[in-house]
Amino acid sequence: MNGPSLAVRQRSLGDPSIGFPLWPPLVNGCPATSTAEIAYPLEVDYDYDRVDPALFDQPVGPDLARWAPLLPPLHAPTLGEGGTPLLEVAGVHVKDESRNPTWSHKDRLNRVAVSAAVGAGAPGVVVASSGNHGASAAAYAARAGLPAIVLTSADSPPAVQSFVRAYGARVLTVPAAERWPLMRQIVDRLGYHPVSNLTVTHTGHPFGPEGYKTIAYELFRQLGTVPAAVFAPTGYAELLYGVWKGFTELRRLGVATSAPRMYACEPAAGGPHARAVAEDRPAAIVELGPTDAYAIACPVGGHRGVRALRDSGGEAVLVTDGELREARQDLARQGLWVELSSAAGLAAHRRLGRSFDGPVVCLATSSGFKDLDVGRERAEVLTGATVDDLL
Amino acid sequence: MNGPSLAVRQRSLGDPSIGFPLWPPLVNGCPATSTAEIAYPLEVDYDYDRVDPALFDQPVGPDLARWAPLLPPLHAPTLGEGGTPLLEVAGVHVKDESRNPTWSHKDRLNRVAVSAAVGAGAPGVVVASSGNHGASAAAYAARAGLPAIVLTSADSPPAVQSFVRAYGARVLTVPAAERWPLMRQIVDRLGYHPVSNLTVTHTGHPFGPEGYKTIAYELFRQLGTVPAAVFAPTGYAELLYGVWKGFTELRRLGVATSAPRMYACEPAAGGPHARAVAEDRPAAIVELGPTDAYAIACPVGGHRGVRALRDSGGEAVLVTDGELREARQDLARQGLWVELSSAAGLAAHRRLGRSFDGPVVCLATSSGFKDLDVGRERAEVLTGATVDDLL
Repeated sequence: MNGPSLAVRQRSLGDPSIGFPLWPPLVNGCPATSTAEIAYPLEVDYDYDRVDPALFDQPVGPDLARWAPLLPPLHAPTLGEGGTPLLEVAGVHVKDESRNPTWSHKDRLNRVAVSAAVGAGAPGVVVASSGNHGASAAAYAARAGLPAIVLTSADSPPAVQSFVRAYGARVLTVPAAERWPLMRQIVDRLGYHPVSNLTVTHTGHPFGPEGYKTIAYELFRQLGTVPAAVFAPTGYAELLYGVWKGFTELRRLGVATSAPRMYACEPAAGGPHARAVAEDRPAAIVELGPTDAYAIACPVGGHRGVRALRDSGGEAVLVTDGELREARQDLARQGLWVELSSAAGLAAHRRLGRSFDGPVVCLATSSGFKDLDVGRERAEVLTGATVDDLL
Repeated sequence: MNGPSLAVRQRSLGDPSIGFPLWPPLVNGCPATSTAEIAYPLEVDYDYDRVDPALFDQPVGPDLARWAPLLPPLHAPTLGEGGTPLLEVAGVHVKDESRNPTWSHKDRLNRVAVSAAVGAGAPGVVVASSGNHGASAAAYAARAGLPAIVLTSADSPPAVQSFVRAYGARVLTVPAAERWPLMRQIVDRLGYHPVSNLTVTHTGHPFGPEGYKTIAYELFRQLGTVPAAVFAPTGYAELLYGVWKGFTELRRLGVATSAPRMYACEPAAGGPHARAVAEDRPAAIVELGPTDAYAIACPVGGHRGVRALRDSGGEAVLVTDGELREARQDLARQGLWVELSSAAGLAAHRRLGRSFDGPVVCLATSSGFKDLDVGRERAEVLTGATVDDLL
């Protein structure tokens, strides 16, 4: 049922007729179609005719290797990523991605992207990130025995700074504007493999969203059908695009007959994908206002998200921090403590106010431990309290 | 394959010939055998003749309901607990219990204990805990629609205090010595169901360790065999006893032919189970010195742990904070960031220095986010750094 990777080439999202060999991963975006203003990403193409549809009969569980035929080669060992539960909460289906090895969805991407680093023979991995992505990349690099450099900024929460440092990576806290130039130097001079973005609009790692595809495969198994809509917290839209691609593959392979509408759930303080769609552009860059949803607070968007929204008939939905806080609290009061950014799916579903003819899935990307307000409250000690004080 | 609970009665661990009806759960220990010095716990007995051995053929996955015949009735809804990965790290098999709904093993207990509260018709749940147990109980109570009161102390880490408060429970921070008298009042006067201990030596909830049994069932499936040894971070030894009971059931049902040696991994600052075994007593209370392993720092032990150690041919192993830190770092440098207490399994395995004729499992109970030193380090911002600074 499993088997080797059937990945055959990289293909440009700027012009799907343009292909490139699978190796090396083109970490600078499509060299043929990108311009000075818009960088086009690449995706991975497979020998789909050789996929055994029985692949989708297997139970949901940890380790992406179960989907190996439809992933790039997995050279990096697993930490048991994926196989996360789907829970009915607050009237929707919530995919609890906090149940991954480093407690966010990023582990799916990093199993694949660090595998690319190993496969490319890189001496190390470099990533620019203030949180989940950096820690996850560090964990997978550690598991694979590769050194890692994480370029982070000082504004991430204290607990998250401990998290990023825990896995033994070299962590450099630098001003935000200096992160990308420094990453470029580390790539060019040390030969480290970048697992975050290097281009003017976001392209990221060409293999990265392939890891997120597995969420679509799992949802199809867990629901027994294709959902009508998927709401994804959206920063650079790698998650949104990856999940969308997974559903298109299920349809292409004849396993499913439909695909969901995809919703990019962006903080109202920014929203580059909302802007790009509104202005009918391939990608956009926006001013970013203040928001506590730091995990999805991105001024720079990319073409992947625009493609997922257009091709699926979905929309970008902007949500305020107030709406995020309310959704986060409602999830917590039903037993799920998610990061503020992770509540964007439920918040956007509510704001959209649209009903769907089928299951609605909200992706909850990460754990509540990673928020800015964690650990801020000091407990007041009550002495001599009795039950009467509780009445 | 699944089906209703086959639980039939509560049975005394003080004298196995003494049984009680299954309901109500006897939350004050065995009323027949306990003395002023030693409280004896109860366990749950099943109609084992009616268990279909095919129960153990099902895949490992979330939701304890898959093991329903061998659990007390599950009246509380799932949060997707259990089904955690087993990873080969540092020469042992590590069961990563940080992959539970509130990122610790406690979710297995609380699915069962909060179910008991629902089944008993209690108007709420009360728990005394500084961390994982309190947050987990609050989450399951929230999911079940029951109010919860958590009695906590001021010395838990700031991030953990946010965690415990997140699920909407009433959290009271009281001096440690006042927690149990206040809990007693809440039980007696409000009728709240206690999901932590009320007795002189530890007995805890009579149904609680049943949730931990599922770890044994999962390990048997994941390894394809019974491990030779299981190392469990040990505070009150509910985990140790529960896992042991699960293996004895597999043997009793003819599914397995052996059972592992069980190792209680206690902080050297305390160690009531090491003391009880050394002095051949049913349970012990010790002085507790300083340790950062707060999740397993218990002066009060119980009879469950003593039974698991004696009956399995295992031992209690005391580990220092230094040994814990080293084990925690070694796990993190291979991609697993665990709580200091969670590293007790690996630390004790190393200290014991014994080789086994079969797989060795270390239970990693919880996530690194919950430690005392999380968020303490402040990042120094480097400006103008170049790649040359890295060489």
